[in-house]
Amino acid sequence: MADIPAKTEVNVTTGPIRGSRKIHVASRGEHCVPVAMREIDLEPSSGEPPVRVYDTSGPYTDPDAHIDIMAGLPALRRDWIMGREDVEEYDAREVKPEDNGQLGPDRSGGVRPFPNVVQRPLRAKSGMNVTQMHYARKGIITPEMEYVAERENLGRAQMKDHIRDGEDWGAAIPDFVTPEFVRDEVAKGRAIIPNNINHPESEPMAIGRNFLVKINANIGNSAVASDVASEVDKLVWAIRWGGDTVMDLSTGRNIHDTREWIIRNSPVPIGTVPIYQALEKVGGVAEDLTWEIFRDTLIEQAEQGVDYFTIHAGVRLPYVPLAAKRVTGIVSRGGSIMAKWCLAHHKESFLYEHFDEISEICAAYDIAYSLGDGLRPGSIADANDEAQFAELYTLGELTKRAWAQDVQVMIEGPGHVPMHKIKENMEKQLEACGEAPFYTLGPLTTDIAPGYDHITSAIGAAQIGWYGTAMLCYVTPKEHLGLPDRDDVKVGVVTYKLAAHAADLAKGHPAAKVRDDALSKARFEFRWRDQFNLSLDPDTAEDYHDQTLPAEGAKTAHFCSMCGPKFCSMKISQEVREFAANNPNGVLGDSPLPPAGGAGGGLDDSRKDAKTLSEGEAQAGMEEMAKVYKDKGQELYLPADAVDNETP
Amino acid sequence: MADIPAKTEVNVTTGPIRGSRKIHVASRGEHCVPVAMREIDLEPSSGEPPVRVYDTSGPYTDPDAHIDIMAGLPALRRDWIMGREDVEEYDAREVKPEDNGQLGPDRSGGVRPFPNVVQRPLRAKSGMNVTQMHYARKGIITPEMEYVAERENLGRAQMKDHIRDGEDWGAAIPDFVTPEFVRDEVAKGRAIIPNNINHPESEPMAIGRNFLVKINANIGNSAVASDVASEVDKLVWAIRWGGDTVMDLSTGRNIHDTREWIIRNSPVPIGTVPIYQALEKVGGVAEDLTWEIFRDTLIEQAEQGVDYFTIHAGVRLPYVPLAAKRVTGIVSRGGSIMAKWCLAHHKESFLYEHFDEISEICAAYDIAYSLGDGLRPGSIADANDEAQFAELYTLGELTKRAWAQDVQVMIEGPGHVPMHKIKENMEKQLEACGEAPFYTLGPLTTDIAPGYDHITSAIGAAQIGWYGTAMLCYVTPKEHLGLPDRDDVKVGVVTYKLAAHAADLAKGHPAAKVRDDALSKARFEFRWRDQFNLSLDPDTAEDYHDQTLPAEGAKTAHFCSMCGPKFCSMKISQEVREFAANNPNGVLGDSPLPPAGGAGGGLDDSRKDAKTLSEGEAQAGMEEMAKVYKDKGQELYLPADAVDNETP
Repeated sequence: MADIPAKTEVNVTTGPIRGSRKIHVASRGEHCVPVAMREIDLEPSSGEPPVRVYDTSGPYTDPDAHIDIMAGLPALRRDWIMGREDVEEYDAREVKPEDNGQLGPDRSGGVRPFPNVVQRPLRAKSGMNVTQMHYARKGIITPEMEYVAERENLGRAQMKDHIRDGEDWGAAIPDFVTPEFVRDEVAKGRAIIPNNINHPESEPMAIGRNFLVKINANIGNSAVASDVASEVDKLVWAIRWGGDTVMDLSTGRNIHDTREWIIRNSPVPIGTVPIYQALEKVGGVAEDLTWEIFRDTLIEQAEQGVDYFTIHAGVRLPYVPLAAKRVTGIVSRGGSIMAKWCLAHHKESFLYEHFDEISEICAAYDIAYSLGDGLRPGSIADANDEAQFAELYTLGELTKRAWAQDVQVMIEGPGHVPMHKIKENMEKQLEACGEAPFYTLGPLTTDIAPGYDHITSAIGAAQIGWYGTAMLCYVTPKEHLGLPDRDDVKVGVVTYKLAAHAADLAKGHPAAKVRDDALSKARFEFRWRDQFNLSLDPDTAEDYHDQTLPAEGAKTAHFCSMCGPKFCSMKISQEVREFAANNPNGVLGDSPLPPAGGAGGGLDDSRKDAKTLSEGEAQAGMEEMAKVYKDKGQELYLPADAVDNETP
Repeated sequence: MADIPAKTEVNVTTGPIRGSRKIHVASRGEHCVPVAMREIDLEPSSGEPPVRVYDTSGPYTDPDAHIDIMAGLPALRRDWIMGREDVEEYDAREVKPEDNGQLGPDRSGGVRPFPNVVQRPLRAKSGMNVTQMHYARKGIITPEMEYVAERENLGRAQMKDHIRDGEDWGAAIPDFVTPEFVRDEVAKGRAIIPNNINHPESEPMAIGRNFLVKINANIGNSAVASDVASEVDKLVWAIRWGGDTVMDLSTGRNIHDTREWIIRNSPVPIGTVPIYQALEKVGGVAEDLTWEIFRDTLIEQAEQGVDYFTIHAGVRLPYVPLAAKRVTGIVSRGGSIMAKWCLAHHKESFLYEHFDEISEICAAYDIAYSLGDGLRPGSIADANDEAQFAELYTLGELTKRAWAQDVQVMIEGPGHVPMHKIKENMEKQLEACGEAPFYTLGPLTTDIAPGYDHITSAIGAAQIGWYGTAMLCYVTPKEHLGLPDRDDVKVGVVTYKLAAHAADLAKGHPAAKVRDDALSKARFEFRWRDQFNLSLDPDTAEDYHDQTLPAEGAKTAHFCSMCGPKFCSMKISQEVREFAANNPNGVLGDSPLPPAGGAGGGLDDSRKDAKTLSEGEAQAGMEEMAKVYKDKGQELYLPADAVDNETP
């Protein structure tokens, strides 16, 4: 087992992401809280302001922060929570050996417990409800909501003059996010801010169709592999590259201690599937599960600070047989645990029966539901089938029951779905679940590429994100094959970050395009370092570039290894642009001739504002342009410094 | 420079792809030609027939084939071509030093010429036209068409009882492909069979919206990097993993000799961009290009056997200024060469002016056009703009001019396009180009992930393939950063293969789903080796599996490292299925209760054929099921052998 201090101190990655600075912006609103962001400085030659990007990495990328894994992160939200005067401290439930899957009190063979455990957790005072949804419905704008508003506004200022361009399929994305907008979305149940009052280390974030698309990364040890130190390292690594939330899916032994290490060191919301730990407590025998054991596990995790629970209450007894027709049956672990319990007792699921009691616990700690899709399809063949949609409509019923107690809810979705069946999933979810945020795994768009399922699923994830899914659960290259290691986690996170961003672009999110445009301008102007720094993974981008052109000079060279120094397509474009600039009369700025064959056809739409010239004017323009070109010496390759001065 | 014999003998990968056999199936039709395919045998426990998959790898994966890079591949199509009695041999154009970018006749510093060059190439007899389109329009079914029909029918026999399930956006994919269907598609210009009569080594394949979606891999050396041996190795490596065609984009020196080595050893069609070589012949000075030099280059490449030419004849003088408005201007090399030429001479493009003469050459050798999109967008900001569509409509005009001479045509497309603008590209192309096959590069759906552009583009490629694009040009992880190495080529090919397959599934292609279902069944039944063998990249799949569970036993174990030995979601599903089998009255096969909350909603559609039972019947069924379950000893984990016998 891991020697925690040594390994964590060695393994956790800290320091700024290359080419960027951590900044804190004061939120606009009465609470004026400091909101963490990342700013990327561009080369002076660009004449452009720094680009602000969404930052999930927490204090780990802040050089001014003192990181001590043994102590955990500072309690950012503690004062906000206490200030509401609706919570009370109490003696924590005693940790039992079975919480860590041990038979006796002896911890030998276990992991070292977190040294800084909170002995007196918080819960709502009797009769109180401490959920963000409860405050929102009472018209209260919390510091958490204000934090989210500022965080989501990224780049909107820079984009304010841009024309909105996208297809949002009925979403309602505002030009600017106000704290009041956040409150209203949370009140309506269209967005959630998952943050347990016992996880004050978390930086507030929102999951909802009208906010930036988020991604989740799964970590956690299993009976077969991994240890606490590497899980804490994976957490920090996953959020460094963009994980918005992290789920701890640990099974086997040491579940309780592993989770404590993770939560105390996490600036992002942590989700779990409590049934996994409950199952360990009954020795892995599903039919021995009871409501009492499950309830005790919920309290245990609520006190530690878990921000959202995956609850498979939609796997009802009548639906289990529907899975018999399937090619891959039930592929959800939680779903099959409950299916087995239902079969063994031929009784309705105790999660379904006791759902309102679970909601009471969620309301007392502000834990959000992630209603699990225990019957999601595990293959293309099973997509959109009877079992899947039977469960979905039950999740819709449960959503309304949770909302009746002001408990925040999101809905889990598939899975494996061919492209032509993806949209139906989003449409049915919106209809069945009253616009509660959708949270999907992929979906994978084919089954035939194990080893590349981060890609088969990114194809589906980008599309369902575009259609309205609020959070995408990542898939790593190891999906279906093994447990992800550190590298797999990074590949999975970056892959999902780009899929989520592609979705934001397609939805016409006002903040999304700033970064694409900045990187493209850098590419056009051969600002290689800006290209690297603006990318989702600067280290890999520069490494790939250096494999063909390692020389330091190449990073400022006006060519790349694809075309070589002799010829480059971007340089000529720069010339064309210069000619246009040198011809204020606009002769070269517009299209002198109607495009041949373009009569009719959608082209006309795009040419509306183009000034049409006579054949003669056009000819004159062409000759003028040729003269300018010759006067410049017909030289394509000017020295780098000269070009930098030329480029606008 | 490379010592060819040594390096090629060392580097070219031969032998079967793991778990599969090369087979040859006699085509149905008068010509009865042997069609190469790959067959994957499944474990006996599956009780399933072998799965047939499309095979692009040529003789290199055939243990019975004698591979000699120095001699080239056997001339599979030679007799078919000669049998038509419309071609003549003649003395080849003499290879000039400038063909290889050399100043003098001395080849020092050059690569060793291919030892087995054809001295007497073929061309159409005077007044004859030898294109597949010409034959098709005369009602002739060629052996090439018959080969294609058999090759495309893959798996359709197994699927004949399946209900078609997909959205094909107006395509016309038949249940079975007949030689007559192929002829008709080629005659209409909706599909092309690119195979130069001087490349008889090629195995016929079709590119068209009503056939399987194809992928292209780019290789080629540049002035900065790479050599002939590694390019031949990349060719063989690219087709091993699924490249349907390969483009040789070599620039710099040795272009002629490099291409000869590639074509003589290629069983797939080879495409080029002739303007690259023409530019080398004038020392890289675009304005010095002339029609005569370009024409001579076309003849040179036609005699070598190039199967399709990318011709940027749509970059017309009037469109060049439109690029001035762009963020990234002109990103196509060929497009910017022509733009520079037009600027320098303020004349219309010589490619546009001499287009019909180029078509005459294509008709004499059966070279297909790949009409280049020289003005494709190079960034999200420039997608679907005036310059791009102006060129597209000109490509439509040129398509009709090429068809007037029975020359086969496909149309190149973007590029960089956000998801919400992808469909418009397909719709405009279909409208402007009369259903000529569309051949796109990606498109990339965001600019911010250099190093991961195989993924940002696979997202767009899968979608545009679904909408109707016939061939997808791969993008490797090195896109925008450097030249792809061997590993990048494999990642690019497998990524595009899965994107093309996702598109086939979504279109409802009758042959596509067989492989997904076979792999999913293998997954459900824990046939690990079948899972590996059925995947696009068996080596990587098994390698990833072994990183967590290396033991040989684990490959037959009824669990994997994700859930561990203690609990596995798939096992319970097998039980549920067994109960269903044990209850022929169907009580467990149907849904005893209407799903809660499911009243109304699309659910009804999927429940049409479900038998509804009374509450009482349902209860009885549940109790019966529980009894069966208890009788079985409530045992989840049965020994592997026992389970294999149980599973249907």
